[in-house]
Amino acid sequence: SLFSEINLSLIEPYIDYLVENQGVHKVFVNGTTGEGLSLSVDERKRLAEEWCKKGKSKLQQVIVHVGCLSLKDSQELARHAAETGADGIAVISPSFFKPTSADALRQFLQEVAAAAPQLPFYYYHIPAMTGLTLRASDIVEGIEETIPSFRGLKFSSSDLMDFGQCISKCPSHWSQLYGVDEQLLGALVMGASGAVGSTFNYLGNRVNSLLSAFDEGDLRQARTLQVSLSHYLTQLNQLMCQVSGLPLGPPRLPLLPCPGSKAQSIAQRLQQVLGKQKI
Amino acid sequence: SLFSEINLSLIEPYIDYLVENQGVHKVFVNGTTGEGLSLSVDERKRLAEEWCKKGKSKLQQVIVHVGCLSLKDSQELARHAAETGADGIAVISPSFFKPTSADALRQFLQEVAAAAPQLPFYYYHIPAMTGLTLRASDIVEGIEETIPSFRGLKFSSSDLMDFGQCISKCPSHWSQLYGVDEQLLGALVMGASGAVGSTFNYLGNRVNSLLSAFDEGDLRQARTLQVSLSHYLTQLNQLMCQVSGLPLGPPRLPLLPCPGSKAQSIAQRLQQVLGKQKI
Amino acid sequence: SLFSEINLSLIEPYIDYLVENQGVHKVFVNGTTGEGLSLSVDERKRLAEEWCKKGKSKLQQVIVHVGCLSLKDSQELARHAAETGADGIAVISPSFFKPTSADALRQFLQEVAAAAPQLPFYYYHIPAMTGLTLRASDIVEGIEETIPSFRGLKFSSSDLMDFGQCISKCPSHWSQLYGVDEQLLGALVMGASGAVGSTFNYLGNRVNSLLSAFDEGDLRQARTLQVSLSHYLTQLNQLMCQVSGLPLGPPRLPLLPCPGSKAQSIAQRLQQVLGKQKI
Amino acid sequence: SLFSEINLSLIEPYIDYLVENQGVHKVFVNGTTGEGLSLSVDERKRLAEEWCKKGKSKLQQVIVHVGCLSLKDSQELARHAAETGADGIAVISPSFFKPTSADALRQFLQEVAAAAPQLPFYYYHIPAMTGLTLRASDIVEGIEETIPSFRGLKFSSSDLMDFGQCISKCPSHWSQLYGVDEQLLGALVMGASGAVGSTFNYLGNRVNSLLSAFDEGDLRQARTLQVSLSHYLTQLNQLMCQVSGLPLGPPRLPLLPCPGSKAQSIAQRLQQVLGKQKI
Repeated sequence: SLFSEINLSLIEPYIDYLVENQGVHKVFVNGTTGEGLSLSVDERKRLAEEWCKKGKSKLQQVIVHVGCLSLKDSQELARHAAETGADGIAVISPSFFKPTSADALRQFLQEVAAAAPQLPFYYYHIPAMTGLTLRASDIVEGIEETIPSFRGLKFSSSDLMDFGQCISKCPSHWSQLYGVDEQLLGALVMGASGAVGSTFNYLGNRVNSLLSAFDEGDLRQARTLQVSLSHYLTQLNQLMCQVSGLPLGPPRLPLLPCPGSKAQSIAQRLQQVLGKQKI
Repeated sequence: SLFSEINLSLIEPYIDYLVENQGVHKVFVNGTTGEGLSLSVDERKRLAEEWCKKGKSKLQQVIVHVGCLSLKDSQELARHAAETGADGIAVISPSFFKPTSADALRQFLQEVAAAAPQLPFYYYHIPAMTGLTLRASDIVEGIEETIPSFRGLKFSSSDLMDFGQCISKCPSHWSQLYGVDEQLLGALVMGASGAVGSTFNYLGNRVNSLLSAFDEGDLRQARTLQVSLSHYLTQLNQLMCQVSGLPLGPPRLPLLPCPGSKAQSIAQRLQQVLGKQKI
Repeated sequence: SLFSEINLSLIEPYIDYLVENQGVHKVFVNGTTGEGLSLSVDERKRLAEEWCKKGKSKLQQVIVHVGCLSLKDSQELARHAAETGADGIAVISPSFFKPTSADALRQFLQEVAAAAPQLPFYYYHIPAMTGLTLRASDIVEGIEETIPSFRGLKFSSSDLMDFGQCISKCPSHWSQLYGVDEQLLGALVMGASGAVGSTFNYLGNRVNSLLSAFDEGDLRQARTLQVSLSHYLTQLNQLMCQVSGLPLGPPRLPLLPCPGSKAQSIAQRLQQVLGKQKI
Repeated sequence: SLFSEINLSLIEPYIDYLVENQGVHKVFVNGTTGEGLSLSVDERKRLAEEWCKKGKSKLQQVIVHVGCLSLKDSQELARHAAETGADGIAVISPSFFKPTSADALRQFLQEVAAAAPQLPFYYYHIPAMTGLTLRASDIVEGIEETIPSFRGLKFSSSDLMDFGQCISKCPSHWSQLYGVDEQLLGALVMGASGAVGSTFNYLGNRVNSLLSAFDEGDLRQARTLQVSLSHYLTQLNQLMCQVSGLPLGPPRLPLLPCPGSKAQSIAQRLQQVLGKQKI
C-alpha cells in the first residue's frame, strides 16, 4: 500500500540535524511542510508530544500548529498542546468553508485560543493554500481585545503591502514571522521579526547567512543569497526529505512522492552547488 | 459561547419531515449542507449511526460522506459506515493539499474505498469549494479498474460539458447525481440520473415537480420551476434550518448564522410564494 | 514574418461554404472566433463591409461586434456598422479596465448604443475571456430604460443559473443567444432562443441536427449529438480554419497556429467520424 | 454625456507640476494610470507627441507605452513613437487573447519592437490587469536574441521571487523598474533600478524620500515612508487627478469618477497628513 505511517523515532535525529547541521533552534510543528492537515488528531498529538519532549533541552521554542477544518478538533489539539508543554500554538483558516468576513475568522480563532488561554497564540496566514480572500491586516485589527493571548502572525503570502500594514498595526513585541522563502528579503526590509519556511530544514545555514547579511546592512550579499535560495526553491520545494539525509519517507496522499531519479538528480545538483558544506 | 453541538434527537423528526413533507426518500449524510467537514470524526460517526438507524425503515438509501483532509480519518469513517449499515459512501477531494493530477486523486480515493470494499463508492466533485482544478471526466477515466466498488458521481459544478463527458464515459448503471440546484434542468437534459442538493431539504416538493415535468417532457413547466427555484436560492441558500420549522440550531464556525430579522423576512416571503403548501 | 494580414477575398467563398455546406444563415462578425479584438479599427471596418455587402442577398442576418477597450473606437465602429447596413451590433465588456459595477458597464454600453441608436443592440457576455466578475442578469436589469435599442444577449458562460435569470427578467421577444457550444443543450432547455459558436463554422450541420432533435422533443438524440460535439471541441477548438477546407491562414499573434502535423491528424479523425458527410 | 475627451493643453502644466512640485523627471506615457488602453490610436499619438514636444527640454526621459490588443495598432504606435522622438517604448501583453506560452508573447513583442528597432524596448508586466499567467522571468529568458533593442522591464506584480529571478537573469545595465507602489521597498532590496507608479504623480517627493533613505541605508526611515505610502494607496489610488490640483477631468468609461464628497474628504486628509508640503 502507498499509505505512509508517521515515524516518531525520527524526530530526535531530526532535531539534532536541525540544531547541529542547519543552525535552526525554533520549530513550527504540524504545519504545511509537516503535512499536519493530512494527519489524524491522534497522530498530530503524538507528533506534538515527541517534538516537545525531545526538543525540551535542545530547542528554544516549539510552536504547535493546531488548526483544523473542525473547530472542535482544533480546540482539542490546543488543550493538548498546553498539557504537552508547547511554547505556543498557531491556527490556520479553514479551507473548505472559508470565513466570509474578518469577524467570522476572528470568532473561529477566539474559540480555539480560549481552549488554551495561557499559550501565546499565532494566526497562520497562507491564502494560496486555504483560498481565503481576506487580508491579514483586517483580521488582526483589534484582535487582542477578543484574544488576549494573541502574539503575532506566521504570514505566508507574497502581498508585502498587507504584511507591512500588519506590522504597523500590531504592537512591536508581537512576532511577525514571514513564510514565503522566495521573497524573505523583501519581508525583512518591511520589518519581519523572523522567518518560518520549508527551506530551513535543509538550507538553514544559507537562510541564517541571509539574515546575518541583512542585519549587518550588507544588502548586496543578502540579495545574492536570496536569489540563490529561490533558484533551489523552484526545483526542490517538496524534496526536503531526500536532501536532509534522514529516511523521512514519502508524503501522504493526496501528495505523491517525487520520482526517485528526479530526486537524485536534484540532490546531486544541490550538493554540487553547496560544495563541501554538509547538507 | 457561540459553539454549537450536534443534536442527535432532531434526526428522527428531520427524517419524518423529509419523507412526509418534502417527498425525499434518499439522503446524503455529512456532506456540505450538513457541514460534515466542520465536525470531528466522532461526531460524524454518531450522526451516521443515527441516520442509518432511524432511517432504516423509513428511507430508501443512506449515503454517508466520509471524505476528510486526512486519508486515515477517511478510512476510519469508511470502515465505520460499513459497520453501521450505510448503503454507500462518498468522498470529496482534499481542499488543503489539492491533488495535482487525476492519478493522485484516484490513488487517494482508492485507499479510502479499500477500507470498505463492499460498499458502493461515489466520488463527490465540488471544485468551487475544494479548489480542485482537475476535470471529473479525467478523474473517472478507468477508475473501475482500481476501485471495483465505484458506482458514480455526485457532481456539483456548473461545467456541463465535463458532466456530459462523465456520463458518456461511465457505465450506464452508475449514478450521475447532480448537485448544483440552480441548473439542475440543464444537467437532466445531459443525462443526470438524480439530484442531491440543499434545496431539497425545504423545497423537495418543488424539485420533485421539476423532475416529474422533465420526465413527462413538459420542458416549459420544468423551466418555470427551475427559474423559480434559482430565485429562492440566491436569497436562501443558508437558511434551510429556519424554513424547515425544525429547531436545527446555528451553523458551526467559521460559518455565521443569518441575522434573525433577515431570516424571518426571507421565510415570510417564501411562505407567501409557496402559498398554502406546508414548507 | 509571422504577421498575418486579413484576406477579404475569402469572405464570399466563406459565406457560400456556410450557407451551402453547413446550413448556417446568420453570422456574428468580428467576434472571438474572428479575432476581432486583435484587429485594427480599419481592418474591422473593412471586414464588416465585406460581410454586409457579400452577405446581403445570401444571409438572413449580419450582427457586427463593435466592442473595443476604447469607448471612442467602439462608437466609431457602431456608426460605421449602421452606415454599412449591418442588422445589429454587439458589444463586449472591456477586459483591461474591467467595470466594477453593473451600472458602470451599462453606462459604457449606453454610450456605444447611442452612436447607432437605430440598430438592434446586443450585450456579449464572455467572462472567461474578459475577466468580468459581474453577473449578466444584474447587467440587463432595467437596461431597456437607458438603451431603447437593446434586443438581447450573446451569453458565453457556463453559469446557466445566471442565463436562466436573464431569460426570466427579459422581454420574451429579446434574443437569448448561447455561446458555449459544449453545453448548448443545457442552455436550450433553459430557454435559449438561438446559438452562436465557433463550432458552427465547420460542424453547423451537426448543431442544426441537435437543434432539430431538441425542438422535436427527442432529448436522447439531442444528448448524443451534444456529447459528440463536445468530444471534438476539446481537440479542435482552434482548428476551424483547417477543417473548413478554405485557405483561411494562421491566426494573428498572440495566438499561435496549430502545428501542421497535429492539425492534420485531428482533421483526419474528424473526417473519419463524420464519414461521408462533407465537412 | 459622460464621455471625456483628452485635453492636450494640460500636458505642459502637468510636466511643470511633476518637475517642480514632485521632483519627477522621467515619465511613462499612455500606461495604466494614463488610461492608455482606453484611448484610440489617434488619441495616443497626439498625447505621445505632446509629452515628447513639451517634455523635450524639461524631462530626462519619456517612455511611451504602445501596447494594444491589436499587434497592427502596436506597430503603428511604435513607428510613431520613433518619429516623435520618444526615448523608449514599452509593451504590455494582450489581455483578451492571452498568450499561452512565453514564446508566443516573445513573438508578439518581437513584432512590435521590429517596427521601431532603434528605440530601447521594455516589456510591461502587469498580470493582475492582463490576466496573464506566465512568469516574467520565463518571458525574458534569452529575449535579447530575438529583440536586440530589449532594455528591461516595468514589473507590476507582487511576486518578488519572479522579480528577483528577472534581475539575476538579465544584464545588469537593463532597467528593472518596479510598479507596485505598495511594496516598492521590497523590490528595491531585491535590486530594482527604479520605480514607475501612479503615486509619483501626487506623492513624488515622498517616494523620492523613500528612495534616498534606502540608498543611504536608513531602512527604518524607508520602512516608515513605505507604510505611510501604502496607507494612502488603499484610499487614494484613483484620486491622483483631484489631489494634484490640476483640472485633469474624470476618467473614461468603463472607469467611473470618484464621488465628489469622497474625493474631497480624502484630499483633506492627505493635506492634513502632509502638512505644509505643497501637494
